[in-house]
Amino acid sequence: MPILNKDMTLCISLAARPSNLGTRFHNYLYEEFGLNFIYKAFTTDDINAAIAGVRGLGIRGCSVSMPFKEAVIPLVDAIEPSAEAIESVNTIVNDAGTLTASNTDYEAVAQLIDENALDPAASVLVRGSGGMAKAVVAAFRGAGFDDLTVVARNEAAGAAIADKYGYRTTTVDPAAGHAIIINVTPLGMSGADSDALSFSQAHIDAAETVFDVVAFPAETPLIRAARAAGTPVITGADVIALQAARQFERYTGITPTREQVERASAFSREA
Amino acid sequence: MPILNKDMTLCISLAARPSNLGTRFHNYLYEEFGLNFIYKAFTTDDINAAIAGVRGLGIRGCSVSMPFKEAVIPLVDAIEPSAEAIESVNTIVNDAGTLTASNTDYEAVAQLIDENALDPAASVLVRGSGGMAKAVVAAFRGAGFDDLTVVARNEAAGAAIADKYGYRTTTVDPAAGHAIIINVTPLGMSGADSDALSFSQAHIDAAETVFDVVAFPAETPLIRAARAAGTPVITGADVIALQAARQFERYTGITPTREQVERASAFSREA
Repeated sequence: MPILNKDMTLCISLAARPSNLGTRFHNYLYEEFGLNFIYKAFTTDDINAAIAGVRGLGIRGCSVSMPFKEAVIPLVDAIEPSAEAIESVNTIVNDAGTLTASNTDYEAVAQLIDENALDPAASVLVRGSGGMAKAVVAAFRGAGFDDLTVVARNEAAGAAIADKYGYRTTTVDPAAGHAIIINVTPLGMSGADSDALSFSQAHIDAAETVFDVVAFPAETPLIRAARAAGTPVITGADVIALQAARQFERYTGITPTREQVERASAFSREA
Repeated sequence: MPILNKDMTLCISLAARPSNLGTRFHNYLYEEFGLNFIYKAFTTDDINAAIAGVRGLGIRGCSVSMPFKEAVIPLVDAIEPSAEAIESVNTIVNDAGTLTASNTDYEAVAQLIDENALDPAASVLVRGSGGMAKAVVAAFRGAGFDDLTVVARNEAAGAAIADKYGYRTTTVDPAAGHAIIINVTPLGMSGADSDALSFSQAHIDAAETVFDVVAFPAETPLIRAARAAGTPVITGADVIALQAARQFERYTGITPTREQVERASAFSREA
């Protein structure tokens, strides 16, 4: 029988509607490494009290999800560049009472740009204007890309992101021909839009890399179409696994291998 | 592999120097009943922030130990009679944001008085003047005992307790002849005073019930001497198990059997 003990380190998440993903991912790796850690998702309706609790209870790490990613900024002691760049926090590390905020979604996208050797001279088309679109666009700016267009139905939101990072925006799809196309909308996600192909076949055919931030399912209609065309893909499952791995690394000081991350991610997606 | 999930209910303890006892006791019974609960001990240097965290994170139950038993009183929403009687809290239950405080040490002593059918007409001698002595004396007052003497080296502390509950106090042991003798000092506890017999043999010989609140070891020199004399005993191990069982009941709504409590208690004392 497993019995927790008093010296165990607690990491948590805060979200309005927590999923089981983080809880399963982190606890899987704690078990894998034999760490005396536990991770549990929490919900709250008082982010100030929750962060006071992180301090008052000495909780080591705190993942932050909707709708608290901006609200926690004034509650921490230090902001790393990844969170500063997009004014959004998804990770807080508590070092002896000092809370440092970062954004591992931004970091995961930056890492995927690097690992996939995406060319900064390539033209990029990004669909979407939400919080994750901001993280993606900021990461491409950080990686030195100059030619990027944000396509957004919400004109004001698209313009806000494009203006902030010095890119173009439009509400109507430009002609096909971009080397990198990226979906950061719910199109293709499990649920109402699961059948939706988020880019035209012409855009897919023209692309050298197809990137879909939708994580469920791992193979969206866009990713399926890209694979059918033999085009390299980056999936939302890659992003979510990498961002969680970077949280794990910050909380524990341990860097898991890619194979361990993939196993933890597969495990987290089972339930 | 055991994997926590997001719907798990968390109960905690707050103490300056947490032991493993509560963590092991509660988690043992969670396992026994197949409950989706976890229990973990915390330490804090900011009780206000810690209780804010109990609220902000929706932590279901919070055991309170030294030095926070009085400091938490203004931080809760309701005080039950058990905590009111001794102005000391060791248990907080969070019902949808309403924190209710109680004292299961008091309740455990009251239950042991009842279960052992102690006679309210009996004369009682209590040695000690700390927080637990207050709980013991208050429980005897609550059970209708009129003849009780507090013996305390600390004259002011002894007088404060005796005055509050309408009893006598002295700094010098009265002559033997009390039906119930109770040790609530560290005499006989593992460590420096482990060999100390907390009452004279004459007091032990005269007693009909011998009660030692020292929980480690379960058999103190006082309990050993009483057993040798064939006198019924109540031990600190009984108190600590019962008070934890009452916490478990409050947190989960489940009443464990005496046998389950004894197994959980034995398990908690192994480490």
